[in-house]
Order: sequence, then C-alpha cells, then structure tokens
Amino acid sequence: MPNVYEARIERMRRKMAETGMRGLYLMMSSDLQYLTGVERQLHNPTDDNKHGDEVYGAFLSLESGPVFLVPRMGASAYVRQQAEGKPWIEDIVVLNDGDDTEHVTRGVLKRIGNPETLGVSGRAWARSLLLFQRILPGIQIVDASIALSEMRARKDEEEIRIMKEAGEITDQVFGAVLRQMRLGVTEHDLIAETNRQIILHGGSGTSFHTNIWVSGPGIKIMYARDGKTRNTPLQPGAVVAFDFGIVYKGYASDFGRTVAVGEPVKEYRRYHDLVMAAQALAISAMRPGQITCAELNRVGRKLIEEAGLGPNFTHRLGHGIGIDVHEPPFLYELQHDLLEENMCFTIEPSIRGVVDVRVEDIVQVTRAGGVPFSHFSHEYLAI
Amino acid sequence: MPNVYEARIERMRRKMAETGMRGLYLMMSSDLQYLTGVERQLHNPTDDNKHGDEVYGAFLSLESGPVFLVPRMGASAYVRQQAEGKPWIEDIVVLNDGDDTEHVTRGVLKRIGNPETLGVSGRAWARSLLLFQRILPGIQIVDASIALSEMRARKDEEEIRIMKEAGEITDQVFGAVLRQMRLGVTEHDLIAETNRQIILHGGSGTSFHTNIWVSGPGIKIMYARDGKTRNTPLQPGAVVAFDFGIVYKGYASDFGRTVAVGEPVKEYRRYHDLVMAAQALAISAMRPGQITCAELNRVGRKLIEEAGLGPNFTHRLGHGIGIDVHEPPFLYELQHDLLEENMCFTIEPSIRGVVDVRVEDIVQVTRAGGVPFSHFSHEYLAI
Repeated sequence: MPNVYEARIERMRRKMAETGMRGLYLMMSSDLQYLTGVERQLHNPTDDNKHGDEVYGAFLSLESGPVFLVPRMGASAYVRQQAEGKPWIEDIVVLNDGDDTEHVTRGVLKRIGNPETLGVSGRAWARSLLLFQRILPGIQIVDASIALSEMRARKDEEEIRIMKEAGEITDQVFGAVLRQMRLGVTEHDLIAETNRQIILHGGSGTSFHTNIWVSGPGIKIMYARDGKTRNTPLQPGAVVAFDFGIVYKGYASDFGRTVAVGEPVKEYRRYHDLVMAAQALAISAMRPGQITCAELNRVGRKLIEEAGLGPNFTHRLGHGIGIDVHEPPFLYELQHDLLEENMCFTIEPSIRGVVDVRVEDIVQVTRAGGVPFSHFSHEYLAI
Repeated sequence: MPNVYEARIERMRRKMAETGMRGLYLMMSSDLQYLTGVERQLHNPTDDNKHGDEVYGAFLSLESGPVFLVPRMGASAYVRQQAEGKPWIEDIVVLNDGDDTEHVTRGVLKRIGNPETLGVSGRAWARSLLLFQRILPGIQIVDASIALSEMRARKDEEEIRIMKEAGEITDQVFGAVLRQMRLGVTEHDLIAETNRQIILHGGSGTSFHTNIWVSGPGIKIMYARDGKTRNTPLQPGAVVAFDFGIVYKGYASDFGRTVAVGEPVKEYRRYHDLVMAAQALAISAMRPGQITCAELNRVGRKLIEEAGLGPNFTHRLGHGIGIDVHEPPFLYELQHDLLEENMCFTIEPSIRGVVDVRVEDIVQVTRAGGVPFSHFSHEYLAI
C-alpha cells in the first residue's frame, strides 16, 4: 500500500493528466510539503536573498520525480535531512556556488521530459518562470496551486490529529498568557508574552504576526501587530481581543478570545454573548454536503444582523486552514463550494463598536456538525 | 528639489530606459518600499492566501505611475494609510471582492501604456506573470530586481541614520538578554527572550528567525531556530553563539556574539581571539574603490586560515543588508564588484570546531575604513 505521500503524488499525477499538465514545478512551499513531506521552512519576516538564487523546489512528471533542485547554501543540508527515509523522493540536485543555474536546470527539466505544459506554484518566483521560458521557449505555464488547494482542503486522519494537538497547545499558550495579564502590563508585553509562550510550549513559531486589539471608553481602538503598537499599560475598562496562531509539526493554528479588564462598558456583555452565540450557531451548521461556504457565512452573521449590528461585523466568517494559516476555501459570500467532510475552517465572528469583541476557533466539518480543535472557555473572561 | 522617493523613481526610470523596460511591476516588497516609501509588510511565517489574489503591488511607466493595484481585503486600508502625504503616488486602484481581476488589471496596464517590455520583481508571483501574459500576449517580461539591487546597495544618509539606530537598539536587546542568562535557562528561553526584548525595545519584529548554537564538551553542536530546539538548560562549559536581527523603521539588523557559560574548553579562548581579530582586519579594509567583495572575503579568512582553521570557517564572510536582511552584493569568492562608499555589509567570521564561535556586526564602507553600526563589546563574554 502506498504511504500518504506516494498516494498524494499519484493523485496529483492524475490531476495533471486530466488538466493537460505534463510536468510540475513546486517551489519550497506548503504545496510541496503536502506532496512530499519535505517541510517548507517558515518565511523570514524579511527576504534572505542569495547570489544566483533563481530556483528552489522540486520537479515532477507523470512518470518521474520528484527531483529536488536546491541551492547549496542554506538549503541542501536541510533538504537532505528532510528527505531521509522518504524513498519516494527520486533525487536531490544541488546548485553549487558558481554553477551555471541555466545549465543545471536544463538538465533537471530534461529528466522530467522537457514538458510542453508545466504546472507551477501560484507563488513561484517570476525569475524561476523566466528561467524555464529561456530554457524551453514556447513552454506553456499554468497555475498548479489551484489543483493542490482542492487536494489540501479535505484533511486526512493524520492531519486532523496534528491540528487537534496544535489546538490543545494553543489553548495552553493562551492560558499561560492570561495568567500574566494584570493592570499595568502593556500591549507590547502581551504580544511578546504570547510569542514567548508559543515557543516554550513547543510551537515552531507563530503562524502569523500576533495581533491584539485594545478598545474601551477613551481608548481609540488599537490594532497592534508585533512592534506596531503602543507601550501603553492596560487600564480598567479596557477590552483586549487576542488573535494569534502557532505552527506545530508543520501545521497552523489560529485562535481568538476577548478579555475584559475590570468592568467594561455595558454594551460589552451584549456584544460578547452575541459573538459567542453567532459562533456556536455556525459551528452547529457545519455538516458536509448540506451547506455552501456562502450559506455558512450567512448563518454566522444571522444573529449579529438580527441584533442590528451587521455593519459592525466587517470581515468574512472564516477561512480554510492547514499547512498555511489562510487556505481556500473561504467563508464569504462569493464562495459557493459545498462543505465537505474533514475540511477545516476558522469560525471567527466579531463585533467592532463601542468596544471590539472577537472569538476564533478552528472547526472540523463532520457529519455530526462542527468539531472545534481548541477548547478554551467561551464564557466571559475578565481580569 | 525632488524628495528622496521622487529621485529614486526618476533614477529607476532612467535605468528602465537604458535597459529597454517600458513598464515596471513591483509586488509589495522591499523593492517597492525603496522606490515609493510604502513599507512592505513583514512576511507571515506561513502563507495567508485570499480568494482571487493574483496581483498586489504597483505599476510604473517612463511617464506615468506609480499606480498601486491592491486587494481590498487586508491591503487597501494599509496602502491608503501608507500613501498619505506621498504625492508621488499617482493612484491606488482597489480590487474589490467579486471584481474581475483580469479586467481591472487590464485597465491598469493600459494606464501605463500596455508596455511591450515589462520589468517585474524577481519574486513576483507566477500567477501575476501568467495574468500579465494573458492580458498582453507577446509581452516581454524581465527581472527588474537586478537594477533595483544596484540602486539599493549604496545607502543614503537617511538610511544610514536608521540603520545606526537599529544597531544601537540591537546592542540594547542583546544586553537585556545577557542579563537574563544564567545556569538552568534553556535554549528555548534564550530565543523567546531575544524575540521579546526586540519588541519591548521598539523593533517591529525579527528580521529573520532568531538562531542560537550551543556547543561544548559532551554537547553536540546544536543549531536552534525558534521552536526547532531542545528545552535543555544551560550547563557549565557550554558556549552559546547568538545570531539575530531586528526590523526597525523598515530596515533590518543582523548581529552575533558568543557567550561562555562558566569555564569553556581551552580552545575557546584561541578561537574567540582569532574570530575577533579576523573581523577587525576585515573591517579595517572596507574602503571604497580599493577592494572587491571577493578580496574582502579573502582578507576576512586570512588569520583563521593561517591558524590552520580555514576549513572550520564554513560560510561566506558576509552579505549586503538594508531593507532585507540578505541583499546583494555578497562577500564571497564569486562576487567581483568593488566596494562602494556607503554600501553596508555584515562581517561575520566564525569557527566551528570543538566549540562554535561567531561574531557579526553591520559595517558601513567609508573612506576611513569600515564603521560598525553595533558597538557591543568584542571582549570575552561569560556568565
């Protein structure tokens, strides 16, 4: 029996055959991780360019590959280590300093049969495409990430297991941050502490830049992402909305809760209860084959709209999640796909008004309705 | 007199004219920040995809633009805010949910004259290129980042001022981390504390994932990047090498020091003094017009090679740095460009052997030799 990666590669080959792709180039990315088990490296916040880096990823045809093509510096040792024990990886070709990139790439393209039609990662580098077009003038290039997104949307058993673990760790991280929250702690402190607890709890890092929003009487609603925030101490009456996620075993989490500091404005309780009820209603409706993304979005907005606060819920209900923090499909009015079993979505209604209230959990689509991966209390939280 | 961004745009137009580019597309990136002052957002560690995102950046021709083309969600508010007070930005076109991306992009390409030859960011998304090629079949696309790298390599007065500030903050961050180092503190703790201090000191975040290496008798040399590390307490005899950087006002720092825990192996002192002497010798040689990158690399390796430890210095001497943590040119044997005034490089010799010793500072090329931006002690550091 083929293992999970061999099965995914064969499934991708069938999709390639159906759509006329004779070859595939995936850059080091979540798509390539999904297909081969070679974990993408988390993006650095700024670019780390290397002399001559034009291509870094793997090639596949209907019959051969995957063949990795990787720059020596900063990449070849990592990829070799990742490829250990993965016999479905055909080869690793290393681009040494001083090699002629075009010559080496020509050799790899030839190994996969100089495809007339090449599928590529949607975010493959422009310079990689220009390189392929120089080597094979007339080559047809198409976006292969669409096909991979379809495969990635339904999670398998092992993915669900990892994402559940990530959810439990996320709960623990938030619990640890909450224990540090007190008057006088600053917005800076809360973000730094969240990021610190993610590492201390075994996460590889954040899946996206940790956000908090601080709102309340006399407080302009404050969007705080990493350093883009004030070093202002928490004050009584403030409401603090958290939005953060971890990376764990190559998978992303995404989580939100709101915490009152002392006694917030009277509207807070009403907003809080509405947001939680809206989320619960959406989760209960997450059955496969019975509801589309757009319909689920409407279910999630229903109670907030009925309360006259529709305009205060300013974003989509949620998004797919897995190896990447935001994956198709998306829960909004233009996505008409039916929910399928074992798709995973964030469900994240919010109200921005006198104060800002958010909640967010990742939820698996099952025949019995949605099953959340994080379990931190949805009750009123205050310090 | 044109301001700095107007001057850069005009300089880029001259380069475009010289090299036959009739139009330019830069994705939201360091290149675009350099040209327009619109700060690129720091990359999230995982991808955040949106429905229909195919293009996000700005277009320019020899006569018109820059015209930004940005998705509404998560981007338009940010770009509008960044564009305030920047009259050199001609327009911001927003791609609303449900808009036909091809139609809107066609309009923007027409505004810049449907260029026959379009320069693009080297890392522009494949799907953006495919979109342009669908709209303008036969369009010639070339890598414009090479021209921008040449412009970005020499820093102006304001860039130098920001990078000096970033260097001072980096010193302070390291000082704060050092005060927390004691027996029993774990590798996890040190990385988390470094990242926390970066935010507390006003950095926007890390410029790359914080690394430490722990080495010593009985300790396998341990490369620790964020979560990819052991939760092992520091023990006497360990040597801890730090490698981290901050982002400050859109610019990156990159810094390294090594700290002994108690009394390290006897080789440590020799390695330490060699690495520091190698760095000092290289810094003194950083005069414009008098030395190439490859020659400087040889100067930086000289003392370590003479001591018979050449094979233990396994990487290049350094790299350019500015908005991105790694920028051309690079200090290694294949880069034959002459150093120019106000280029900025990391100078980072190391020895990996019985223990692992690193040092790294950013250094500005001046007529009087190299001027470092960080000033933390190069003496023997121990706890």
